[in-house]
Amino acid sequence: MLGHWGTTPGLNFIYLYLNRIIRNRDLNILYVAGPGHGAPGVVASTYIEGTYTELFPDITEDEAGMQKLFKQFSFPGGIPSHAAPTTPGSIHAGGELGYSLSHSYGAIFHDPDLIVACVIGDGEAETGLLAASWHSNKFVNPKTDGAVLPILHLNGYKIANPTVLARISHEELSNLMHGYGHEPIFVEGHDPNEMHQKMAVAFDEAFDKIRQIQKDARENNKTDRPLWPMIVLRSPKGWTCPKTIEGERVEDFWRAHQVPFGDLTKPGHLELLEKWMKSYHPEELFDESGKLFPEIAALNPVGFKRMSAIPQSNGGAVKRALKLPNFTEYALAISAPGREEGEATRILGSYLRDVVKANKNNFLVLSPDENNSNRLNNVLEVTNRVWNAEIFDFDDHLAHEGQVMEILSEHTIEGWLEGYLLTGRHGFFSCYEAFIHIVDSMVNQHSKWIDGAKEVEWRRPIASLNILLTSHVWRQDHNGFSHQDPGFIDHVVRKQSDISRIYLPPDANTLLYIADHCLRTSNRINVIVAGKQPQAQWLSMDAAIKHCTEGVGIWEWASNDKGHEPDVVLACAGDVPTMEALAAVKILHEHMPELKVRFVNVVDLMTLAAPSQHPHGLSDGTFDSLFTKDKPVIFAYHGYPQLIHSLVYKRTNAKNFHVHGFREEGTTTTPFDMVVLNNLDRYNLVANIVNRTAKNSSKVAYINQMVCDKLVEHKRYIHEHGQDMPEIRNWSWTS
Amino acid sequence: MLGHWGTTPGLNFIYLYLNRIIRNRDLNILYVAGPGHGAPGVVASTYIEGTYTELFPDITEDEAGMQKLFKQFSFPGGIPSHAAPTTPGSIHAGGELGYSLSHSYGAIFHDPDLIVACVIGDGEAETGLLAASWHSNKFVNPKTDGAVLPILHLNGYKIANPTVLARISHEELSNLMHGYGHEPIFVEGHDPNEMHQKMAVAFDEAFDKIRQIQKDARENNKTDRPLWPMIVLRSPKGWTCPKTIEGERVEDFWRAHQVPFGDLTKPGHLELLEKWMKSYHPEELFDESGKLFPEIAALNPVGFKRMSAIPQSNGGAVKRALKLPNFTEYALAISAPGREEGEATRILGSYLRDVVKANKNNFLVLSPDENNSNRLNNVLEVTNRVWNAEIFDFDDHLAHEGQVMEILSEHTIEGWLEGYLLTGRHGFFSCYEAFIHIVDSMVNQHSKWIDGAKEVEWRRPIASLNILLTSHVWRQDHNGFSHQDPGFIDHVVRKQSDISRIYLPPDANTLLYIADHCLRTSNRINVIVAGKQPQAQWLSMDAAIKHCTEGVGIWEWASNDKGHEPDVVLACAGDVPTMEALAAVKILHEHMPELKVRFVNVVDLMTLAAPSQHPHGLSDGTFDSLFTKDKPVIFAYHGYPQLIHSLVYKRTNAKNFHVHGFREEGTTTTPFDMVVLNNLDRYNLVANIVNRTAKNSSKVAYINQMVCDKLVEHKRYIHEHGQDMPEIRNWSWTS
Repeated sequence: MLGHWGTTPGLNFIYLYLNRIIRNRDLNILYVAGPGHGAPGVVASTYIEGTYTELFPDITEDEAGMQKLFKQFSFPGGIPSHAAPTTPGSIHAGGELGYSLSHSYGAIFHDPDLIVACVIGDGEAETGLLAASWHSNKFVNPKTDGAVLPILHLNGYKIANPTVLARISHEELSNLMHGYGHEPIFVEGHDPNEMHQKMAVAFDEAFDKIRQIQKDARENNKTDRPLWPMIVLRSPKGWTCPKTIEGERVEDFWRAHQVPFGDLTKPGHLELLEKWMKSYHPEELFDESGKLFPEIAALNPVGFKRMSAIPQSNGGAVKRALKLPNFTEYALAISAPGREEGEATRILGSYLRDVVKANKNNFLVLSPDENNSNRLNNVLEVTNRVWNAEIFDFDDHLAHEGQVMEILSEHTIEGWLEGYLLTGRHGFFSCYEAFIHIVDSMVNQHSKWIDGAKEVEWRRPIASLNILLTSHVWRQDHNGFSHQDPGFIDHVVRKQSDISRIYLPPDANTLLYIADHCLRTSNRINVIVAGKQPQAQWLSMDAAIKHCTEGVGIWEWASNDKGHEPDVVLACAGDVPTMEALAAVKILHEHMPELKVRFVNVVDLMTLAAPSQHPHGLSDGTFDSLFTKDKPVIFAYHGYPQLIHSLVYKRTNAKNFHVHGFREEGTTTTPFDMVVLNNLDRYNLVANIVNRTAKNSSKVAYINQMVCDKLVEHKRYIHEHGQDMPEIRNWSWTS
Repeated sequence: MLGHWGTTPGLNFIYLYLNRIIRNRDLNILYVAGPGHGAPGVVASTYIEGTYTELFPDITEDEAGMQKLFKQFSFPGGIPSHAAPTTPGSIHAGGELGYSLSHSYGAIFHDPDLIVACVIGDGEAETGLLAASWHSNKFVNPKTDGAVLPILHLNGYKIANPTVLARISHEELSNLMHGYGHEPIFVEGHDPNEMHQKMAVAFDEAFDKIRQIQKDARENNKTDRPLWPMIVLRSPKGWTCPKTIEGERVEDFWRAHQVPFGDLTKPGHLELLEKWMKSYHPEELFDESGKLFPEIAALNPVGFKRMSAIPQSNGGAVKRALKLPNFTEYALAISAPGREEGEATRILGSYLRDVVKANKNNFLVLSPDENNSNRLNNVLEVTNRVWNAEIFDFDDHLAHEGQVMEILSEHTIEGWLEGYLLTGRHGFFSCYEAFIHIVDSMVNQHSKWIDGAKEVEWRRPIASLNILLTSHVWRQDHNGFSHQDPGFIDHVVRKQSDISRIYLPPDANTLLYIADHCLRTSNRINVIVAGKQPQAQWLSMDAAIKHCTEGVGIWEWASNDKGHEPDVVLACAGDVPTMEALAAVKILHEHMPELKVRFVNVVDLMTLAAPSQHPHGLSDGTFDSLFTKDKPVIFAYHGYPQLIHSLVYKRTNAKNFHVHGFREEGTTTTPFDMVVLNNLDRYNLVANIVNRTAKNSSKVAYINQMVCDKLVEHKRYIHEHGQDMPEIRNWSWTS
């Protein structure tokens, strides 16, 4: 026997009373099932509503269909034990716990007619993300957003332990919910008959309150943050299964978590199962053929009002395309490579401002309190930061409505954005690079959702998850080692190749192109890495378009191998590595003008992968034509060097790749010292190139000595002055 | 000007009144500074106590020393802006926010004389980890554990936004704290004089309550969970700095976050700074030379009573070595490779049981509600799961005291364990493999702490962070894709090479050896990957010891290249890949007995890395002697194949490595189907080997046809029967 019974009766029970409310009030309700392994409860309800059969016609509404439905559960080639992309009406997978509430809030932002009934498991309630996301109600505007009705389902047990919230006093739990800004309504008991009455009354009360709150805000212009209702449903785990089996407590205990009794060969077990199953009186619900009696089926909502068929649950199908301004209009004018300075993310901010403006309530800019620190301030020219807790008159761009959302929880930000995307909207998440690891597991699960949804015929592509990583590893001058980690790229590279994309635009115009491109895509996880500091700019918009379209290319103006096979390829990816590589080129041109150096910049990291491994992978021919078949490739890379090796290992010239990147040498120090610590600086690049190419040993010795002297001079200078040498600070390509 | 002023006055203020309590009551208090960028506050206090000068003698107690102290702040080669390993008395870095409270609880478990005063920033309070960790008080036994006094510091602002908890009503906040199981004591105000009085009173009240709770538990045997006190300190951000600067609000606003005014060249700014600094009347505190007046210094606690010198903050120095039983006594008797079956983690559980027994209150076994699911049940024979919320008589191994801790929050588990290790104890964390990504960022920061602490002369090594990943990617038969992710290995491999260790023991005896080894180490992050399912066992304890000591080796009994250079190397790492590789060997022996196959198993993954990149890396000579210089190496690997390529890329034979592993093909399916989906099965391994080695094309065609037939047969069988073919289920090496 296979199944996950524990949470199921509660999920069904809630579903039923939500249906009653929908029918009585004609509401649009989306059902989010947070508890782990809740699929049986949700799938059964969607089958009873007919939706399952509409979407999966082989699961017919009769005995044969029902048998197929049951058999596929947790079965090879079947459906998982938790809600998933195959579950009609779901925007939420219940595998890794904790996402339900932040997803629910993401779904109702800017959708005033939607109510999400979010069932929160009491196991899931112990997770960090769930615990943080209760405060999402401070970001809901009852006038312009929908509503979330949290339903905390206390069935008391996880796999093997009781749950914390089920083992604190009623008073403490009530205080906790009030503390989260909710008015709790308790529905508690064991007896199904009593509980049916209580649940109906509680839902009436809760939905009355939501209606009143929305009316006050929408018709009476009440702006105070309301006390939103929520339900605490305390019902036994595995409710209505046998109370004990072989003398062991099962109902209302952790033993009911999965299958109350699995081994049907044990004496009496088959009879026990039959008795249990018959206790639900299927003969009162289904006719002889296994079809629901019409009078029972008539209790369901109809059409799109069914929670299993609500359009927002198939976000891709209701998605409105973004209206994108012409990104070239935000271009920084470039007279020559390296002549102008710019802050890439600040320029991006102007573009995003106009994306916000053109896509009212269809596009969110999110950040964990870093929007301005990441220099996207310009978006605040046309919108505000949403805030529905107390606002003072001196507050800065806080308002009840807006398209910028910030809370100091990467988890909550990611959860909101996922919920927003999954219900058909668009967004952009900016984050300090090091701390994006906080959402590693969430991004995993989102990529699994996308991957699974692609296999489901009736699901439509949702907008991509766009993540800008800035305030990156190379420019944490004062914050130091705790803020230095470029490993999220490595994390995302492992995801499905048709989903993961990594871009490292080296300057403002390339960043504009890439951001625009990412916003046009769907079903992807786009990671963009770009610094926020003022720095030299390289490409005009025309050059940026050409370069980014190809994803990788030779920068002729920095190369001196024209018409020849080079002696060495100097490659780079990332803004700081690009600058160091260019500085290295200048040193080489000066000291070894005879050395033919080809300069290659990589914007789209996945071009390096073999075409069999990633759709963006360059053909071997193109790859070889850029990186040669046998010349040394010195590669200055933004992140961990091992990643480049793992991308190029199938290439002809793989063994000649020598990658400089972050090697976990971090600290509080100057920008140049950071690259020196990690051997990513211009001098180390030069030394490596010279040692691998020069045939004249006195030349090699001379360059090595120069490099050594420079690095000593650098160390001495920063020790004395606390900043980089003037020749570093004032360095420019054109000088 | 450099600095982070915002949180500093609050941190100093709290420190001062804790000192008063320590002196009045002779308490042992550890100070945890959660707010971001709190270093100035903490470092200044430890300097005033004299500890800083004792530990860093060049920072003298005079004007010159003070100047050095100030100058090193956020300065190249200096100290970071948040608490760090260099901060005396700290077990906690304040870089990535959210860890303070779970670290604090980890510190007081099993240390009844310790009180941790944990300052929680109101920014940090928005994070998931912090939000979840409030419930840690349900796991504190006032009799045998110490106490945590949470001090929620509401200074109202983050970098650019207000904080949520500062913008909800007093009543809501009070409810929230009561809901978390605390009795809040509010200290609120702007006027320093009034606040001094209030703080003294509040601390007296709080520490009275803690004393009473501990007395009730320890002397009067009171066992109810108490309502622990906590403090809400509401004081202005940047308290006592200029109220406005150039007409802009600064004190009590986000503008005070870093430096209230940085540009001293602006007219009047230097004077403003001087006026501000002089407002603290340094002449009343320091003599002409810059030394604290003796009567002021006399206010400090002395010796180890100083929070900056409390022994527990240098955990390595107070660490008691683990008493480890002889792991060989738990060995599974192996008569021949593959003859016996065993559940590796269940056997480990018996060993861990005796580690628990021998190390009362010095060793914790932790898990997010998965201890029994991970088959470590046997530890419960000698201890209980700690639980101080309500307990019913039918509960299973729940008690107020114990050495097993479970809560459904990987974050909280990791935070507790880190706090426990950092204060000198030992532990073992078991987790489902996929969900360990939840703590990616925490493991990052812990590895940064270890790395930083190694550079600090007076810090001593702490016990390693030991993580067992089980319920792994290959055996999620019913849970499916959401539970399938082997990427944590990739994450840890990127960390410092002297810290990160990855072990993939293929069976029970190797797991015993590896676990014992890990428990003996310090300052490491040991990741052990081992399945929990019954499976064939390969190595006797003697063989396991030999194999694990080397970390990688040829399994002669599975090889037929004796005395010759092999035609192919079949390598493997991980329990499931090892079984598939052995099954492949059998097929090859049967169908191509002339093919000389060398079988290599890798337990210690880092042996593959170049010795220049990891201390466990095999010398090139040894590597070549195992993997040959030019023969195909077919590698069956537990995780993402790219990782193996990124480890071996410097090796002579790198280009001949062909790695089979997880390629993101996950679903609900049978164990064998999972390996088939990812080409990691015996048949695909055989096909790859034959295609790369056989010279006889009819032989190649024959084998390819056989493989193809087998895979078709397999698919057909699971479709019909929902389980693997009998020849797969019943396969054994010895049959």
